[in-house]
Amino acid sequence: MTFSFKGLSAFPITPMHQDAPDESRFATLISRLVEAKVDSIGALGSTGSYAFLTRSEREKIARLAVKHAGATPVLVSIGAINLRDTLLLAEDAQKAGVKALLLPPMSYFPLRDDEVFTLYETVNSHVSVPVVVYDTPGTTQFHFSDSLMQRICQLKHVRSIKLPSGSPTAEEASARIKRLLPALPEDVSPGISGDPTAGNALMHGARIWFSEWGGLFPRLARQLTDAALAGQKDEVARINAIFAPFWEMSARYGGSLRVIASAAEIMGLAGAHALPRPLKGVSAQDAEQLASLIKTHQPS
Amino acid sequence: MTFSFKGLSAFPITPMHQDAPDESRFATLISRLVEAKVDSIGALGSTGSYAFLTRSEREKIARLAVKHAGATPVLVSIGAINLRDTLLLAEDAQKAGVKALLLPPMSYFPLRDDEVFTLYETVNSHVSVPVVVYDTPGTTQFHFSDSLMQRICQLKHVRSIKLPSGSPTAEEASARIKRLLPALPEDVSPGISGDPTAGNALMHGARIWFSEWGGLFPRLARQLTDAALAGQKDEVARINAIFAPFWEMSARYGGSLRVIASAAEIMGLAGAHALPRPLKGVSAQDAEQLASLIKTHQPS
Repeated sequence: MTFSFKGLSAFPITPMHQDAPDESRFATLISRLVEAKVDSIGALGSTGSYAFLTRSEREKIARLAVKHAGATPVLVSIGAINLRDTLLLAEDAQKAGVKALLLPPMSYFPLRDDEVFTLYETVNSHVSVPVVVYDTPGTTQFHFSDSLMQRICQLKHVRSIKLPSGSPTAEEASARIKRLLPALPEDVSPGISGDPTAGNALMHGARIWFSEWGGLFPRLARQLTDAALAGQKDEVARINAIFAPFWEMSARYGGSLRVIASAAEIMGLAGAHALPRPLKGVSAQDAEQLASLIKTHQPS
Repeated sequence: MTFSFKGLSAFPITPMHQDAPDESRFATLISRLVEAKVDSIGALGSTGSYAFLTRSEREKIARLAVKHAGATPVLVSIGAINLRDTLLLAEDAQKAGVKALLLPPMSYFPLRDDEVFTLYETVNSHVSVPVVVYDTPGTTQFHFSDSLMQRICQLKHVRSIKLPSGSPTAEEASARIKRLLPALPEDVSPGISGDPTAGNALMHGARIWFSEWGGLFPRLARQLTDAALAGQKDEVARINAIFAPFWEMSARYGGSLRVIASAAEIMGLAGAHALPRPLKGVSAQDAEQLASLIKTHQPS
């Protein structure tokens, strides 16, 4: 199946066990996504700890994701600080059967515009599957100008952009999405990444939601996606309200990964210390709140 | 020789050639530092592109640095996104004969205070050589509070801190240095990293200058260090004025590495495309200015 840049793309964590990926628990997470009928699976996104893993670990996890995803298409991030490594990762991923590649302008020294264009241009000329431009200033410190984004979107294999919803503020991000969308080529699918505003973005032109919490609560994210794409404002508000305390805690921890890993542990879907070191899960007090939220709403 | 946390610690670039470290040119850079009688060599700092290289490349470069440094002690960065990898790099470096380890709170998701403390505490309990706390918010997005820095400085192997000189502004950085220094344990040597304010910092309590441009112009940096430590204000101002246009261009390019690599190419000390991809050197116009500055001042 080719990669469909629409609907719900769910991003599971890669649970760790003793400093290595926990392959059996990862496989279970993938199977849950397939059962929830997500449109695609974003393995090895930021939420999947791609930046913490070695090339061989990333290859193994990509193969595992493809195997357990069955007919559901898989994308992986090929982000690396060195462009040489990104090209190797792209080769590994394509050989593993991945249907699309997610490319952030990952860096050690924040990159400059011409360096970022060269990054996408070089990858574009080396790959045969679609590429998603991953705009994630919170981790890359890089801010795409509208004109650079439009130039990159002219590249043959670039088929989607994954925009942050809260950078620098939710209002500015929303204004940017409204400004960018009409200027994108027809074959480039606008996508939204920040969970809290995804419903709203899907009602206003975004075609795909790259969802972090959707990797753990795929049924709930599926409902939100369907309601938003059908323009059911009240239903979107109802589901947003269930997600809200999880999103609020994510914001307090500077991102979703730490909170999702703690929730996965509570749900028995990850072991203790499932985060790559030195990342830590939530405090005991917040873990209690998480457990109580999960008990109340039974999200799945 | 043990590592002496004082005077000039010069940080050479790691020139690349066809996507791999250019070992012969790197060896030449190390020999120039030894001839200029720097106090120590910081191989594989940010300027040495540590973040772009694989574990085996970093091991090879560390061994090469130690071999060509002779009696001059070498330190290397053991920074990595995954703490597991940092511990492996620390082992490799110590086996290679490195005398001190530079540890930044490198991250993909900016780290939280307790995660950073765990990082330093874990490394401290695994190593037998001194550790330098590398405070580099421009690349890590992490800001050390005074109290966290003091807590980390109590760890047995922590012997120096490498403070940025311009973060968030030069004035605030200078106020921070004045505030932090009296609170540091006796055996922790305060160090400064930003070249433009190093002379001033060395005149006001900093004991070691971790110098980026000192990796390319070690004689000039040696003169600046000696003048500053002797309190020769006018001589410091004279040498600062020679460095100033190089520093100004570095600031315009968001850091020194791109400009130092271009200058090294002009001086025949690095080949073309010496930067790890996707980093690029300076524009043709700035390269002309660099060439003219080098011709005028003959810095070495």
